Amino acid sequence: MESYRIALLGLGTVGGAVVELLAATRKECAERAGRPIEVSRIVVRDPSKNRTVPADLPGHPTIRGDAIEAIEDPNIDAIVELAGGTEAPREWIRLAIEQGKDVITANKAVLAIHGDELFDLAKEHGRSLYYEASVAAAVPILQVIQQGIPAGPVDRLTGILNGTCNFILGRLEELSFEESVKSAQQAGLAEADPTLDISGIDSAHKLALLARILLGCSVPIEKLRVEGIEGLSPHDIEFGWEHDLSLKLLGMMRRNGDGTALGVMPCFLPSSHPLASVRDEDNAVLLEAAPFGSLVLQGKGAGGMPTAGSVVADILRAARGDAISYPASGTVEKITDPGATPVRHYLRLEVPDRHGVLARVAGALASEQVGIAALDQPENLLDFAGVVPIRILTHPVETTRLDLALSHLDEDLQSITRPVRIRIEE
Amino acid sequence: MESYRIALLGLGTVGGAVVELLAATRKECAERAGRPIEVSRIVVRDPSKNRTVPADLPGHPTIRGDAIEAIEDPNIDAIVELAGGTEAPREWIRLAIEQGKDVITANKAVLAIHGDELFDLAKEHGRSLYYEASVAAAVPILQVIQQGIPAGPVDRLTGILNGTCNFILGRLEELSFEESVKSAQQAGLAEADPTLDISGIDSAHKLALLARILLGCSVPIEKLRVEGIEGLSPHDIEFGWEHDLSLKLLGMMRRNGDGTALGVMPCFLPSSHPLASVRDEDNAVLLEAAPFGSLVLQGKGAGGMPTAGSVVADILRAARGDAISYPASGTVEKITDPGATPVRHYLRLEVPDRHGVLARVAGALASEQVGIAALDQPENLLDFAGVVPIRILTHPVETTRLDLALSHLDEDLQSITRPVRIRIEE
Repeated sequence: MESYRIALLGLGTVGGAVVELLAATRKECAERAGRPIEVSRIVVRDPSKNRTVPADLPGHPTIRGDAIEAIEDPNIDAIVELAGGTEAPREWIRLAIEQGKDVITANKAVLAIHGDELFDLAKEHGRSLYYEASVAAAVPILQVIQQGIPAGPVDRLTGILNGTCNFILGRLEELSFEESVKSAQQAGLAEADPTLDISGIDSAHKLALLARILLGCSVPIEKLRVEGIEGLSPHDIEFGWEHDLSLKLLGMMRRNGDGTALGVMPCFLPSSHPLASVRDEDNAVLLEAAPFGSLVLQGKGAGGMPTAGSVVADILRAARGDAISYPASGTVEKITDPGATPVRHYLRLEVPDRHGVLARVAGALASEQVGIAALDQPENLLDFAGVVPIRILTHPVETTRLDLALSHLDEDLQSITRPVRIRIEE
Repeated sequence: MESYRIALLGLGTVGGAVVELLAATRKECAERAGRPIEVSRIVVRDPSKNRTVPADLPGHPTIRGDAIEAIEDPNIDAIVELAGGTEAPREWIRLAIEQGKDVITANKAVLAIHGDELFDLAKEHGRSLYYEASVAAAVPILQVIQQGIPAGPVDRLTGILNGTCNFILGRLEELSFEESVKSAQQAGLAEADPTLDISGIDSAHKLALLARILLGCSVPIEKLRVEGIEGLSPHDIEFGWEHDLSLKLLGMMRRNGDGTALGVMPCFLPSSHPLASVRDEDNAVLLEAAPFGSLVLQGKGAGGMPTAGSVVADILRAARGDAISYPASGTVEKITDPGATPVRHYLRLEVPDRHGVLARVAGALASEQVGIAALDQPENLLDFAGVVPIRILTHPVETTRLDLALSHLDEDLQSITRPVRIRIEE
């Protein structure tokens, strides 16, 4: 059978790993795909830079700078988009599909933002648009929710979807937040500007792609509550230890009578929870539905080779011509706030070390009927002169109501740092 | 598009759950499959028994007693074999494929034993033979190793593949072995004769099916070391607690320079191991390979509805006409003994309470250079008059060599119960 010819857009960490893997497993790839895979073109931003690809890479690609030229090449069967960004990839993917080519991408942002347009286009032209590597890197979660579980509603999804954040939260056991971010950067896991990761936006992109398949509708990320891990500190981890809780940044989907709650928030999980022990840059997704109870997938959520593995698996599926059901677009399901469900919360305030402060904090909480289950002012957590932390465990309360109560705090109690409040999920 | 018409062979726990699920999710099934799914025939052993199927089950099936008649019905697209056994299903699957029908089965035994013949036949006739539900019930592990991970060698697979055994090992924390088996029977997880589960044979069938895909060759189960959980006791669980180890029945595949070690054995796992916290009737599989590091899938490994979920997912894949690469048959890879790798072992002997017994046990072990790291004779474990347990932690040693040493024990030290020895995997 004729070779399946691909053009690679981007030869960074992931692209480099893709060519390495395709070269090392050329025989196994051809077997699974039912035909040889050839890399016919590689497109890079600056083709004058010296680059090497493995000598045994099937296809002996040209390395050039013009993406459009590669996409319009009639000998190319599929475009593998690994360049990053949103606007240029959007155009490349559009053009590729219109030219009758399959597309494989690891780019969550472009699909979370332009999914309606691109999925519809792929459907219309009968082309494959695979994006397994864009969510949870090595974990084949998209394939599992598209084909591996029975049809019918999934009630809940809970995911650790950002390996960088999970790595940082792990380091926070010993380091300050700033040092933890630096440590992630040194490990090659965080960008020089880590905002997209630590703000929760990257997790929200992935949650939107998962929810789109599970709900059968488009999920605009601007409708989601998205909170990141900025401002968390070793104090919070320590509270977790004391109460047998593990701090994770979670993407959550919960169907309820009223619609579907969707959002990204740092949460405490009891140590018996299947995601509580997910460490380092691992990602994990817990699915819950009546027929199968619960199902957990866990694996590397970042890194060149783990991501490349999913890209290659997608290339092979595309080369086999496997059918794929496209996530529906258009009709938006009613999206609600996961913070609207009452749960216990942990609360940390850094307040002036003055008489009467505790009473004023308790008063603000009481004004919105937020019950206090426990409160302490640990001496060993003294950070700097004149400021003490107050840690509070609340009775179950909606995050929204707790936030309202916190907004009633006098300005002098808010000014030192923003209060940290974390949901304690069951 | 025309309906995809199936005949169900068997309406027991799984069959009943399949019709329930197909009725409840008819709309979602039609959407994912791209065509409606109809149950046109149901075949049961005794059609005179009164049976009900959901009123809204698409297809309004006849319920009859003749499997051959159903298989030969030209209006049927696929046979869903849920009857159990090996010889009758082998004939039914053969005939169905020869008649040009797809086959979906949850029957691990028939494929582990007659896989060469049936997979080759499906390939030859270009039909689908899906069997996701036969391994780890609700966990879509076959799909993941066939399509979800990159092509190329998987170095290690470690699986908890029998939900009944895992349930029994969990109960063993509080109950005797016999009481634990009874508890599994009461929970509907163990057969009246639980031999197939507790002997490890069921796990071996599943391991063989997984290894067949991963190694690309047929795996005759008679070449595997297969050990069950018979004879284990709360004493052993207690040893685990003391040493932060968790007792699991594991199916293992480890590629080594010499071939591939394959077998089923009860093993201790350190509590930090990803499979250590798998509880109740859950199954879990850990895959390890260079490109993706490690990947874990965990979910329900037994029960009507969890199994039915995977059967339905397979029906939808077959109805879509998804391509499937068949596990190769014929060439057998060199299979070695997982007991040939040296690891620490736990050893429990029940010996007569006499002077000099310890010295004789130590002597037998020393005769094969088995080093003793720790030894105790816990008084609180006294079971009956005149007999004491000896518990030994060895230095790393091959299971084969340890067994040889144990065979040197004088007969009076072996006679009370067979020595229990358990590998401590890392």
